[in-house]
Amino acid sequence: MDIAMIDDQILPMAELAGPYLDRGLYFGDGVYEVVRSYDGRLFALDEHLARFDRSLQQIQIAGVDIESVQQKVLSAVDAGGYANAKVYFHMTRGSGPRDHLPARDTTPNFLMTVSELKDDPKAKEKGIAVSTHPDWRWKRCDIKSLNLLANVLARIEAKKKGASEAILVGDDGVITEGAASAFFAIDGKEKTLLTRPLGKEILPSITRARVMQMARNAGLSVVERALTPQQAAECDELFIAVTTQDIVPVVRFDAAAIGNGQCGEWTSRLIAEFAAFVRMK
Amino acid sequence: MDIAMIDDQILPMAELAGPYLDRGLYFGDGVYEVVRSYDGRLFALDEHLARFDRSLQQIQIAGVDIESVQQKVLSAVDAGGYANAKVYFHMTRGSGPRDHLPARDTTPNFLMTVSELKDDPKAKEKGIAVSTHPDWRWKRCDIKSLNLLANVLARIEAKKKGASEAILVGDDGVITEGAASAFFAIDGKEKTLLTRPLGKEILPSITRARVMQMARNAGLSVVERALTPQQAAECDELFIAVTTQDIVPVVRFDAAAIGNGQCGEWTSRLIAEFAAFVRMK
Repeated sequence: MDIAMIDDQILPMAELAGPYLDRGLYFGDGVYEVVRSYDGRLFALDEHLARFDRSLQQIQIAGVDIESVQQKVLSAVDAGGYANAKVYFHMTRGSGPRDHLPARDTTPNFLMTVSELKDDPKAKEKGIAVSTHPDWRWKRCDIKSLNLLANVLARIEAKKKGASEAILVGDDGVITEGAASAFFAIDGKEKTLLTRPLGKEILPSITRARVMQMARNAGLSVVERALTPQQAAECDELFIAVTTQDIVPVVRFDAAAIGNGQCGEWTSRLIAEFAAFVRMK
Repeated sequence: MDIAMIDDQILPMAELAGPYLDRGLYFGDGVYEVVRSYDGRLFALDEHLARFDRSLQQIQIAGVDIESVQQKVLSAVDAGGYANAKVYFHMTRGSGPRDHLPARDTTPNFLMTVSELKDDPKAKEKGIAVSTHPDWRWKRCDIKSLNLLANVLARIEAKKKGASEAILVGDDGVITEGAASAFFAIDGKEKTLLTRPLGKEILPSITRARVMQMARNAGLSVVERALTPQQAAECDELFIAVTTQDIVPVVRFDAAAIGNGQCGEWTSRLIAEFAAFVRMK
């Protein structure tokens, strides 16, 4: 008889509950998004859904109606009732006996959670420390997939070093992005915002695109160029950008204090711009 | 209120069943093994457990008693009652609210399945076709992790081309290994078995080690060297090795027929050696 065992409990495989057969669990065979709301309004939902659609296509999960995903997000956010909500959702290829090759009749599984998003004003005000870690991720980081072990390991190492985020560095010696964030530098003298160009090595971050737009509005030129850790450590200001926290200043990069060890002027201005933008939209 | 949604069903997050909170599902944050039995005897269980232990250490899941895992495997295999069983087991870092950084009190989740292993004599006799695919996996393929989306995508592409396995090719233009197998070539003239040396780019396959040992016994020299697809296609014989099927001849490599398009002499001999070895052990 086919058998399953969960922790110490043996049971017939036929009694194994559905989620234990999810290809998301066996292979990370799925893609996800994180969306947030500000004061009851979901931020850039369309763009997140478009990226989700693209991720699904890239891993060949076909036939998903993105409008229905949108409806689900709206319903769940409504049920949660939070003004500032964090919405996580993923879709996996579906469930079935473990085989790399999915069975023909596999249909996707959808899972979403909605929780209250508590902003971290202290991180925004005082800034965070980051530490570098080799970028061990796969070669399709443009797909927002459930294969996130490299990101988890980098974050665990960062925490050991007292850092709140890991900045990933490729084999070529240049920074790709944060383990769970986009990464930016500012050259104050040149009035330039620096960030890595899009490609298969990084996620096309939606917050990144907004930050670039705001930087231009604020009078910075935007240059898409990858930096070495040393180049980054020598910049006047550094920050990360992530959906759940938008812009967070970086005041320590490995052993180097950045600027005067406090949130820099340009970064402060961008944080204020971002806050104004999301509240007025 | 924190909300979850499974497919179309909204529920309070507090009612979300345990497996939906598994870090294995959100991050692929776990490692696995596949073991098989021949005629009621588990093959190389110690080595699989040692590799499992190493994988756990590499991803910093601490405090797992490997002897207790062994006991679980033996109990479940016994409950299954199959002479030829396929045993899959994994351990994830545990469950908790989705955060890259695991909570301090996270304890591992263990899952195992035991099913009947049906050998595929036709594949062994007639051989299989394989097709090459870029190796999109992460940079720690020496860890047998649940981050397997690159492997899944390679297999989906292989199937579209009528191939049973994908042979992965790195950015440097040389073959790493199969999406779910070790890869071998034989130079008949030189009486040499060729396979890639171990490193972070491939799994330290247990079947691979056995195959190398048997090849030496059979009079082949073993050379650990990476091959380009073109070099592989020009070899006299090719085969893959995988726990569940041991040795399977490759008779087509992309567009190239290998040897005379049938299982080669050396490969036949190794298959017979392997069969004798596992039955008599």
